[in-house]
Amino acid sequence: MPKIKNQYLEINPWKIEEIGYKKSESQVSESLFSLANEYMGIRGYFEEDHSEDSLQGVYFNGIYAYSPKQIDTSYLGITDKVHFMVNAVNWVKTNIIINNQNINFSKIQHKNFKRTLDFKTGEMKRSYTALLDQNLEVEFQFNRLLLMEYPQYGYQNISIKSNKKCNIKLSLSLDFSTLHWQKYRFWESKDKGLITDKSYILSELPTKQRILAMMNLNINQTVKSSYFEQDLSIGQSLTFDLDSNKEITITRKFTAIKEKNINVNSQTIIKKATIANDKQPSYEEAIKLNKSYYKNYWDQFDIVISGNEEHQQGIRYCLFQLQQTYHGYDEKNNIGAKGLTGEAYSGHTFWDTETFCFPFYLLNTPDAAKNLLLFRYHTLDEAKLRAKELDCKGACYPIATLNGEESCDLWQHASLQPQPSTAVVYAIKHYLSLTKDYQFLIDFGMEMLIEISRYLFSRGDFNPSRTHFGFFGVMGPDEFQMMVHHNTYTNYLGKETFKYTLKMLEYLKTNYSKSYNELIKKNNVKEQEILYWQEAKEKMHLLYDKETKRYEQHLGYYELPHIDISKIPETDFPLYHNWTYDRIYRNDMIKQPDVLMMMFLFNSHFDENTLKENYDFYESRCIHESSLSPSIHSILALQLGLKNEGYQFFEFATRLDLDNYNRNTKEGLHLTSIYAAWMNIVYGYGGLRTDQLPIKLNPTIPDTWNHYSFNFTYQTAIIKVNVYREYFTLSLEKDLEDAIIIQEQKVVLKKGKHIFKAQKKEA
Amino acid sequence: MPKIKNQYLEINPWKIEEIGYKKSESQVSESLFSLANEYMGIRGYFEEDHSEDSLQGVYFNGIYAYSPKQIDTSYLGITDKVHFMVNAVNWVKTNIIINNQNINFSKIQHKNFKRTLDFKTGEMKRSYTALLDQNLEVEFQFNRLLLMEYPQYGYQNISIKSNKKCNIKLSLSLDFSTLHWQKYRFWESKDKGLITDKSYILSELPTKQRILAMMNLNINQTVKSSYFEQDLSIGQSLTFDLDSNKEITITRKFTAIKEKNINVNSQTIIKKATIANDKQPSYEEAIKLNKSYYKNYWDQFDIVISGNEEHQQGIRYCLFQLQQTYHGYDEKNNIGAKGLTGEAYSGHTFWDTETFCFPFYLLNTPDAAKNLLLFRYHTLDEAKLRAKELDCKGACYPIATLNGEESCDLWQHASLQPQPSTAVVYAIKHYLSLTKDYQFLIDFGMEMLIEISRYLFSRGDFNPSRTHFGFFGVMGPDEFQMMVHHNTYTNYLGKETFKYTLKMLEYLKTNYSKSYNELIKKNNVKEQEILYWQEAKEKMHLLYDKETKRYEQHLGYYELPHIDISKIPETDFPLYHNWTYDRIYRNDMIKQPDVLMMMFLFNSHFDENTLKENYDFYESRCIHESSLSPSIHSILALQLGLKNEGYQFFEFATRLDLDNYNRNTKEGLHLTSIYAAWMNIVYGYGGLRTDQLPIKLNPTIPDTWNHYSFNFTYQTAIIKVNVYREYFTLSLEKDLEDAIIIQEQKVVLKKGKHIFKAQKKEA
Repeated sequence: MPKIKNQYLEINPWKIEEIGYKKSESQVSESLFSLANEYMGIRGYFEEDHSEDSLQGVYFNGIYAYSPKQIDTSYLGITDKVHFMVNAVNWVKTNIIINNQNINFSKIQHKNFKRTLDFKTGEMKRSYTALLDQNLEVEFQFNRLLLMEYPQYGYQNISIKSNKKCNIKLSLSLDFSTLHWQKYRFWESKDKGLITDKSYILSELPTKQRILAMMNLNINQTVKSSYFEQDLSIGQSLTFDLDSNKEITITRKFTAIKEKNINVNSQTIIKKATIANDKQPSYEEAIKLNKSYYKNYWDQFDIVISGNEEHQQGIRYCLFQLQQTYHGYDEKNNIGAKGLTGEAYSGHTFWDTETFCFPFYLLNTPDAAKNLLLFRYHTLDEAKLRAKELDCKGACYPIATLNGEESCDLWQHASLQPQPSTAVVYAIKHYLSLTKDYQFLIDFGMEMLIEISRYLFSRGDFNPSRTHFGFFGVMGPDEFQMMVHHNTYTNYLGKETFKYTLKMLEYLKTNYSKSYNELIKKNNVKEQEILYWQEAKEKMHLLYDKETKRYEQHLGYYELPHIDISKIPETDFPLYHNWTYDRIYRNDMIKQPDVLMMMFLFNSHFDENTLKENYDFYESRCIHESSLSPSIHSILALQLGLKNEGYQFFEFATRLDLDNYNRNTKEGLHLTSIYAAWMNIVYGYGGLRTDQLPIKLNPTIPDTWNHYSFNFTYQTAIIKVNVYREYFTLSLEKDLEDAIIIQEQKVVLKKGKHIFKAQKKEA
Repeated sequence: MPKIKNQYLEINPWKIEEIGYKKSESQVSESLFSLANEYMGIRGYFEEDHSEDSLQGVYFNGIYAYSPKQIDTSYLGITDKVHFMVNAVNWVKTNIIINNQNINFSKIQHKNFKRTLDFKTGEMKRSYTALLDQNLEVEFQFNRLLLMEYPQYGYQNISIKSNKKCNIKLSLSLDFSTLHWQKYRFWESKDKGLITDKSYILSELPTKQRILAMMNLNINQTVKSSYFEQDLSIGQSLTFDLDSNKEITITRKFTAIKEKNINVNSQTIIKKATIANDKQPSYEEAIKLNKSYYKNYWDQFDIVISGNEEHQQGIRYCLFQLQQTYHGYDEKNNIGAKGLTGEAYSGHTFWDTETFCFPFYLLNTPDAAKNLLLFRYHTLDEAKLRAKELDCKGACYPIATLNGEESCDLWQHASLQPQPSTAVVYAIKHYLSLTKDYQFLIDFGMEMLIEISRYLFSRGDFNPSRTHFGFFGVMGPDEFQMMVHHNTYTNYLGKETFKYTLKMLEYLKTNYSKSYNELIKKNNVKEQEILYWQEAKEKMHLLYDKETKRYEQHLGYYELPHIDISKIPETDFPLYHNWTYDRIYRNDMIKQPDVLMMMFLFNSHFDENTLKENYDFYESRCIHESSLSPSIHSILALQLGLKNEGYQFFEFATRLDLDNYNRNTKEGLHLTSIYAAWMNIVYGYGGLRTDQLPIKLNPTIPDTWNHYSFNFTYQTAIIKVNVYREYFTLSLEKDLEDAIIIQEQKVVLKKGKHIFKAQKKEA
């Protein structure tokens, strides 16, 4: 893996810190210092004027626009309308004039710059001393916070102190004149005004989605204040004299209401915001609320690593960011590839959600996991429409979406990758297996299983002699091969989908016959369909060679020209920017795990020899152009006892953004990779396996660590895992019902602390 | 083949005729009645106002604009700039006002409508009687002509006669305000004016290409005349009284100069046009010149069919249109898929030129064939640039072009189809084989062979064990399969390219060592390269099964789901408009011959059993969505003695446009299919084979014909072939040097007439 880190932040277990302004990394810092609370997010950009490259992004989960770019396509089934999460209101914007001089950070002298993001409070702080004319030194402190528990609330706290008396004018605005992709302006202002001490602006997108932004200011001294309006912004101007060494503090309480229902009138929204703003806790209370929120969070979710501070910081940063991005607050929300931290990947949800993010919630907050599944249930109609657009039956879940509609305009992905649909099935199965929530199956899950099986049966086909079934003209998770037949991953997941759908139909028939009959009727399931799914399952073609124990990635893969990926010059990366498009596809190099992904997901289906053979073969061909790739390789390497390889992949995964390995953190954090980093600890070092009951646990520890710990929840019991060099302990506050397999021994864990001796395994 | 004819024109051996206006086919008629002379073309549209759907197209060979559509692509090697032949000056536009009533054909009553296109003169005539208010009946006759010999000249001849005296105002303009794709306006007027009796307008495209349009009028009575100008047009208004039963005739002589050199100033162009217009023959002389031109043409090129008038008309129409489109006037010209008759396919030249059009010229006017090869030589630099864009070496000829640049923005075609390059090699080989013009090889051909071999070697690859070479990630001629490996056609043509390049290098080394050394030096050919080409040739992977004698179309083709194409409902055609894009690709249906195309091109390489096996297998899977497909199938069916199948395919091919089988003739004529119809007679019924020396001839005759004849030129001798039911004759006016194989017997034909008894062969 030719990935080299670029580290400039301080190492600290509970925060990230930039000491001294790192100009060249201005946008990287904006991403890294992002705040979010699932409802909305804000990049860690400057409040005041500056002239650096900047993406001043504020995003609201599920708030989107359609692209004005006209997509010409003369072919059917190709998406011609794409939507994306749109940059919204800059609610921390602050213009500063001191003694008639406009403060532009890039144009003034300054010292003592510091920017901090605290994982225990969710507070982002930035401070510096401006060195102005006539030896005037002004100390600025900008703090901001998003309340986790009541996510419509945001805070900005500005303190200013100077060594001499000076005159200051501040303009604090709520500004919807933001550009999307630095190019398009979508917002239209519908209402604005001042109600007693609250100023507000209500803006609307062409999708008719609206956001009401409201603020009021608290200031610790008397100032001259006036309200102002512009086309797409409103604000308050403050003018005052600041005595020397006296500090003025301005607190902006920001309330945001997003409204997707076009039938709600403006006045109702404004009233709702006014009430909410009245109730909004003070900044001090907000800090307390967040502290308490994060205390609970860390108590349950923390991963402690002793022996490597970089890893400790890295994994905590991941845990902090993933909680910010999503915690199951709203079943209409989902997780974008970049979370709420940037515009790359358009805020879209990919198969990443079910494949990489879902296990975190399932093993910690199953209700949040359920909400992610409900998101798919709520967009079942769009998935049905998409299947129809593709001349298929049933429901085809989109490659990329915010609202359920397919939003990927590259046909080679949107038409050829069935993996989002099979990922939904995988997640339903995973959820049911661990939670036994059969009511979910009856209310939502079975319908999705039926519709996805329908889609897969219509998308797949039999070979001419009808001896086997498979998927033709697909792209597997390895996006460096397209229009392939019998992709092992796709066929395997297809087989498992049919198998599970049939099994669950049978289960309901036996155990919930009334619900079963209603479901069969409602979804018009024909006996013949069930027979077809049975046949497809049985005849599913898997390119497995018993001799070598190897799966061929797809029909003809072994025939492809071989590339020694270690010989590709570093300057050729990323390949999409340096290689011609078709060149990427005509060799045996793979982008990310495909056969190995299958072996991770259905880990219990494959013995270690099989895994080893396939790992050795495919790992050496994998170029990891997806940031999700290294964690999966790490987990499997660790399973195989390949400690060095597993460790190297882990190092990358856990600090992917902090050390900007991929050089594109400025576009936003690799949010879904952050979940993969969590899996890298829990499934990788922890050796957890949940793809089959009983679940398994088999912790190991890397050579450089003395100890690490993580927790997970199973059958409502939190299991605290502490791993030391010679032994590990499991602590529970209640008994488990079912056995789990620890170090290959079946054990029914009871309340209390259990000690296990470490097993040594050498590669 | 679910193709149904739609016939509305009269059957006549020497012309097409529309008697009574067929409103529903207005645009089909515009295409069918097109005139062209290689230099320019004009659709058979109305001169005067009307309100029907219409494409008033006038096109100049090689005059193009770049599309203003922004093509977004984040990938390398994908064309982001496309050009197309642009609609130019409407030089027959004529407004007519009679007794203050504007004559709009669609809004008046009329009778006796007739439109004719005469294959012996190239004259298009249209006449009708307008029935106006107060029983005024006005007879109109509109004739037009493009001079074949001096192709910058066009003519319009209008005659008007009425049953009562009336006042007439005519405005005859030269109008550049034409829209392209009914949407874009590209022309900018640079100069206009009146020089004595000549009015002119000089217009320019964003490509800086210019056209000077000039006209003068000849009228057989005195009229009031005035010159007028508008932004993009100029013209003459004529006002006169027409006495009852007296005929007025206006002849417009049109001179067009196209100028691609930006350094030529306007005055030079205007002067050139003025001189040319002065020399322009009268309309009567022009008719004579064209008559004489076409007499010579038909004397040499005619195909006579006795026994089926539809076929006779069909094939003559083809011969007429192909000569209009291209006859080798300028080596910068080429043949668009729609010739100069419409905007579909953007006027682009495809592999069709070398594969389908080239043999006609090679066997009739080898100099024209040479000019087509020179077109490729002149665009070698663009082909080299394209190879570079694709991370390849050498020269990659474009899928679609007017100026040598790749103009296809569908990467799946432009990046995956090496067939234009191999087609150039095939044509060079074909040309040299029949003409033995080794000077051409030295001056132009060898360089193209070297550069194309370079490209192919860099585009292909060895399998991992280096036991064989082939092309990965390609699309063969069958465009319903993409990203395939070891496509038989591509590999075979690749092998033949290397073989021929090596053979010609060897030939020059032995016979023209000085030229050889210069070429090696100029093109920097390394010994290692030659060794590589040798290796690639020897190791080229061909998916041939000796047992069945069948070639697999590409790796894995046999595994594809089978579609019974006879069961696809007629309403599903064309499939691109009714099937989702990816659905077309995931089955064994093929669009047009692929393995069979190879067997046509290298016919002598395959014995009849092999051909039969492959024909039976692939013909039943071919849906003929390309209009080029049926002729090739017909030729091979006839070779196999499958008279019925051969005949059915031929019927379609020879009247494809006249009977509008594909329902898209309104977009323009299927020009390159017209060449395939010629091949269908000469290679199909005539049994000519020229892919190897000695050439072969083996005529047969369909049951419905009594006799047919065709001619071709070989070794500068014209060979006249007359085929009767029981025998056929070959007549030559000079001896042939080399033997040809007639009915499988080697014969050296001498001057005179030779009679051969027909062989009966039953399928």
